[in-house]
Amino acid sequence: MRISARNQLRGSVKRVEHGTVNSEVTIELSGGIEIVSIITKQSAEQLQLTAGSVVHAVIKASDVMIATD
Amino acid sequence: MRISARNQLRGSVKRVEHGTVNSEVTIELSGGIEIVSIITKQSAEQLQLTAGSVVHAVIKASDVMIATD
Amino acid sequence: MRISARNQLRGSVKRVEHGTVNSEVTIELSGGIEIVSIITKQSAEQLQLTAGSVVHAVIKASDVMIATD
Amino acid sequence: MRISARNQLRGSVKRVEHGTVNSEVTIELSGGIEIVSIITKQSAEQLQLTAGSVVHAVIKASDVMIATD
Amino acid sequence: MRISARNQLRGSVKRVEHGTVNSEVTIELSGGIEIVSIITKQSAEQLQLTAGSVVHAVIKASDVMIATD
Amino acid sequence: MRISARNQLRGSVKRVEHGTVNSEVTIELSGGIEIVSIITKQSAEQLQLTAGSVVHAVIKASDVMIATD
Repeated sequence: MRISARNQLRGSVKRVEHGTVNSEVTIELSGGIEIVSIITKQSAEQLQLTAGSVVHAVIKASDVMIATD
Repeated sequence: MRISARNQLRGSVKRVEHGTVNSEVTIELSGGIEIVSIITKQSAEQLQLTAGSVVHAVIKASDVMIATD
Repeated sequence: MRISARNQLRGSVKRVEHGTVNSEVTIELSGGIEIVSIITKQSAEQLQLTAGSVVHAVIKASDVMIATD
Repeated sequence: MRISARNQLRGSVKRVEHGTVNSEVTIELSGGIEIVSIITKQSAEQLQLTAGSVVHAVIKASDVMIATD
Repeated sequence: MRISARNQLRGSVKRVEHGTVNSEVTIELSGGIEIVSIITKQSAEQLQLTAGSVVHAVIKASDVMIATD
Repeated sequence: MRISARNQLRGSVKRVEHGTVNSEVTIELSGGIEIVSIITKQSAEQLQLTAGSVVHAVIKASDVMIATD
């Protein structure tokens, strides 16, 4: 499957924390950069996400804001 | 200013392409990872973004989806 | 590839209209239901979308609002 | 009320599951297509959503991604 | 029509600027507060938005970030 | 820090309700207008939000829909 979202960053799952409805997944990209994702618990289970899983963080370009100091 | 968005990734602007209303900004994080952002041209101008500008890519955790192969 | 977004609706592209930066893609689901998507023109070209292409409309559950009459 | 969101798909509520803060609502469109929505529990209660309620799934065009096989 | 989005702020259109695909609409709330919205030009035309139109700015609670100084 | 989001509305926190994962924050703008925000509980704690805190509600222009009666 290929998807229209412009950002598809390869990494591995560092940590999964399940809430009642949602799960918080921390992904480590190359270079040690971490990205936090919140998805539904049902999705996290269907994708069988656990520490070490190889994944892509998928982000639409219009969801990336830019800040300067 | 501090903001509630969970992901604030430091990088530098690699390229800015202005459209009529929107601008597409490519940000290079450490390790050579690139993230593409689309913001309004007015915002790009107000932040004076040009190649080399030090910026943060700001992304809400709920806007990060996860894909597996 | 499998993705965490809860809604992945199979359909076919009915129409693609390219703007300068974005493209508007109309997808027809079974039963004649139409969904309009706006993605970047670059994505539309990379996915080689044309009328008749078989696609999935991918939508996060938290992006679906509900209205009543 | 009329709203700027491009997708307003008529259907009926098939199932409502309440969490602590959010509710997950499954909507059945014509042709048996199902869409899952997550809204706040407070909104679900104010709209008095129960199985069988006639509703519209409201989705912005820019929140619809496209995937190909 | 009633919608699940938590924020529905009444105001009047102060200015509409049409691009090729999108329109930028500035809404003035009571107390002189201004909110900028970007919707598709087609939606702006269907809603017949012009300066002075009475409208509601509709915003999901999860799309409101918080910043501190 | 300056950010690309077009709407940055100054106000004060009126109420914070913490859930397990998310917090609901009600912000009062000038003129008595209220905006509801849902952010992660972790962000609410890091920003030390309590009733009376001076904050900005930060909203992307593309997340503002428009409704008419």
